[in-house]
Amino acid sequence: MENFAFDIPTRTVFGKGAQNEVGKLIKSYGGSKVLLHYGGGSIKKSGLYDDVVASLRESGLDFVELGGVVPQPDLKLVYKGIELAKKEKTDFILAVGGGSTIDSAKAIGLGYYFDGDIWDVYTKGAKVEKTLPVGNIITIPAAGSESSNSSVITNYEKKHKQGYGNELIRPIFCIMNPELFFTLPKNQIAFGVADIMSHILERYFTVSIHTDLIDGMAESILKTIMSNALIIINDPKNYDAWCQVGLGGSFAHNNLLGIGRVQAWACHPMCNKLSSTYGVAHGEALAVITPAWMEYVYKENIGMFTQFAVNVMGVESSYREADTLIMDGINRLRAFFRQIGAPAKWSDTSVKTDDFETIAKQITVYDSGSEKPVSKNGMKELYWQDVLNIYKMCI
Amino acid sequence: MENFAFDIPTRTVFGKGAQNEVGKLIKSYGGSKVLLHYGGGSIKKSGLYDDVVASLRESGLDFVELGGVVPQPDLKLVYKGIELAKKEKTDFILAVGGGSTIDSAKAIGLGYYFDGDIWDVYTKGAKVEKTLPVGNIITIPAAGSESSNSSVITNYEKKHKQGYGNELIRPIFCIMNPELFFTLPKNQIAFGVADIMSHILERYFTVSIHTDLIDGMAESILKTIMSNALIIINDPKNYDAWCQVGLGGSFAHNNLLGIGRVQAWACHPMCNKLSSTYGVAHGEALAVITPAWMEYVYKENIGMFTQFAVNVMGVESSYREADTLIMDGINRLRAFFRQIGAPAKWSDTSVKTDDFETIAKQITVYDSGSEKPVSKNGMKELYWQDVLNIYKMCI
Repeated sequence: MENFAFDIPTRTVFGKGAQNEVGKLIKSYGGSKVLLHYGGGSIKKSGLYDDVVASLRESGLDFVELGGVVPQPDLKLVYKGIELAKKEKTDFILAVGGGSTIDSAKAIGLGYYFDGDIWDVYTKGAKVEKTLPVGNIITIPAAGSESSNSSVITNYEKKHKQGYGNELIRPIFCIMNPELFFTLPKNQIAFGVADIMSHILERYFTVSIHTDLIDGMAESILKTIMSNALIIINDPKNYDAWCQVGLGGSFAHNNLLGIGRVQAWACHPMCNKLSSTYGVAHGEALAVITPAWMEYVYKENIGMFTQFAVNVMGVESSYREADTLIMDGINRLRAFFRQIGAPAKWSDTSVKTDDFETIAKQITVYDSGSEKPVSKNGMKELYWQDVLNIYKMCI
Repeated sequence: MENFAFDIPTRTVFGKGAQNEVGKLIKSYGGSKVLLHYGGGSIKKSGLYDDVVASLRESGLDFVELGGVVPQPDLKLVYKGIELAKKEKTDFILAVGGGSTIDSAKAIGLGYYFDGDIWDVYTKGAKVEKTLPVGNIITIPAAGSESSNSSVITNYEKKHKQGYGNELIRPIFCIMNPELFFTLPKNQIAFGVADIMSHILERYFTVSIHTDLIDGMAESILKTIMSNALIIINDPKNYDAWCQVGLGGSFAHNNLLGIGRVQAWACHPMCNKLSSTYGVAHGEALAVITPAWMEYVYKENIGMFTQFAVNVMGVESSYREADTLIMDGINRLRAFFRQIGAPAKWSDTSVKTDDFETIAKQITVYDSGSEKPVSKNGMKELYWQDVLNIYKMCI
C-alpha cells in the first residue's frame, strides 16, 4: 500500500424528500445569496425546481438563476456565471443537475475570486487560493462530481475538454434523492453506469500491491452496481436499486477507492477528446474503450486482470490458462455493457473513425511539444501509437 | 435503504513516517499550544514520543504533557486534563495512543469549554456547544476512535462505563503508520481485531432491507481483516497486513458501514459493564459475546444470518437447512477468534459469573427506573432475562 491522505468532507444528505432540506443546509453553511445553476428545462418539468425554490424561500435565502448548462459544460457559460456571481455578489452556488452542472458550478466558484482567465487555471496551472462554496442536488448519478475534487470544462472553440483537480472545489454538500433518477432516459442510465464503473476501474487497476482492503471494496461495489443496474434498466422507478447505484456513483469518485494505490487513469483521457470532437457522451465512449484498453494492456499485469475476472466478473476457469480466463472476464464486461444498452463499438456512436491518428497525437502532445504518454502510472504507458491501436480495436 | 447524512471529515494521514508530519498538521489547523496526551511509557520506549516532540518543536509549537491514560480511560484523569488545559490555555489536543487515549482526549476537549461536570454530558445529556480540536497518532488499531464521533469514559467509583456520541468530537486528523503496531502484544492484537469486527457486525446486522452496497463493503472488509489478522498473528511486523487491518479498523467505526441502515448495537452495551466491573478488555469481552448473541437472535432474521454465513464465513451448504448453515457460520467465527488467540468463554477471562443477574439488570435499567432493552433497533430487543441468557451461554 502507498502512503496517502484521505477524507470525505462533502456531506451527503441522502433519501426521499432530501431536496427539501436544501435551504436549511445552505443556511447552515453560511450562505445568504445563492447562484442557482442548472441545465435545460428538465428540473422545471419534474417539479424539482419548484421544490428547490420553495426551500430557498422558506429559509429566507435570496437567489439568482443561471440555467442552460449543456453536457460537456461550455466554458462560455462559465464566463457568464462568473460575471453574474460577481455582479450579484452571491456567496454560495447551488448546482441542480448532473455532473456537467456541478462541474460548471465548480468553475464559476473558482472564477469568482480569480483575477484572470479561468481557462488558464484549467489548462496552464494558474494558481487559485479561494472559491465560492458549492452545494448540489444530483439528478444523474454518473460523473461523481457531487463529491469529487474535480471538474471538466469544454472549450468548444478549441475543441478541447480539460479536467482540473483541487481540494478547494470539493462540494460542501450533496443532496441525493434517488427518486430524482426515475425519469432518466435509458441511454443516460447506461452511460451513467459505464461512467461510474470506469471511475472505479481507473483506480482499481494498479501496479501497487498489498491493496486488499480497497481492492475488495471496489470489487464488491462494482458487483453491486452491475446487479442493480440490470434491475433499473427494466424498472427505472426502482428506488432500492437506484439507492445502490446512486451511492455507488459517489463512492466511485470521491477517491475512497483510490487511496493507498497508484491509479491507472487510462480510459478517461482517451475519451475526453472524442467527446469534445464528436459529441459522444462521456460514459458512452468509456463503455466502448474500457474493455479494449483492458485487452490491450492485460499482459502487463496478469495477476491484476485475473483478479478482476474472478472477483468481479465471476469467471470460474482454469488458472493455468490465464489469457482465456482474463479474456472471459473482459468479454463478460462487454456483455454487461451491451445488456444495459451501452455501445460496443464506434459505429454505435457518433464517433467518426477518420481522424483517429490526429486525435491520438493531440492527446499525447497537446500544448506541450514533446510526447507525454497517457496513463503514465498505469499498467502501460500509452503513446500515440498505442492510443491509435486501442481506438482501432473498437471500430 | 434508510435516509441518512454522511461525511468523513477526519483526515487520515497514512503510511510510513507519517508521525513526523504531526507538527505541520497541527499548525495547518491553527494549533499553537498543544496538550500532548498519552498512556503509559510505551510511546517513550518505542521512540514515538521523541518523534512527536521533535516534530512539534520543528513546527514551533508549544506543548504541555499529560500521560497516564489507562485502558477504559478514567474520568479522574479527564478532570485533571481539563484543569491542565484550562490552566495552560492549550488550543489543540494531540492524543498519542490507542482508543482509550483518544477517548480521554475527546472528553478533555469537550470539558474545556463546558461549565459544569463533564460526566453529566456523558450520562445526563447535558449540552455542549464547542470543543478543543483533537488530532491523534494511533498506536493500536481497535477502537476506531481515531475517526469516530464517540468516546467512552469509565467512572471507577460508580463502576460505570459510559459512551457518548457527538459530531463535535470527531478528530480533525488521524495519523496512522502501521509500523507503530509492530510491537503490540499478541493478546492486544487479538482483542483489537475482535473489537474492529464487532464495530462492523453491530452495523451489519440490520432489520433494514435493500442495503446491498454497504452489505457488500462490510462483508469484503470483514474478510480482508480476518485473512490479514491471521498473517499478523504469526508475523507481527508484517507492514502490508497491518495496513489492511489498520485502515479497516477506521472504516469499521467512522460509520461508512453504518449509513442507510438501522444498526443492532447489541454486543457493545452487554460488554461495557463487564469491563468496568471485572476489568476484562473490551475486545476480549466482545469476542466471547458476539457469537453467543448471534446464536441467541438469529431466528429473528434467517436471511441476514444466512447472508453472513455464506458471504463472510464462506459456508457452502444446503440452504434448505438454514439452522445448520447459520450455526456453521457462527462456529466459524468462533473458530477464527480462537485461532487468533481471543477467548471463547468467560473462564478464559477475568469475568466472574456470580453477578450476571445484577449486571444484566443494571444494564437495562441503569439510572432510569423502568426497563430499557438493549439493542432497541436490532433483530431482537434484549431485556434483562435475555442479557442474562446470553451471558450464561458463554460460561
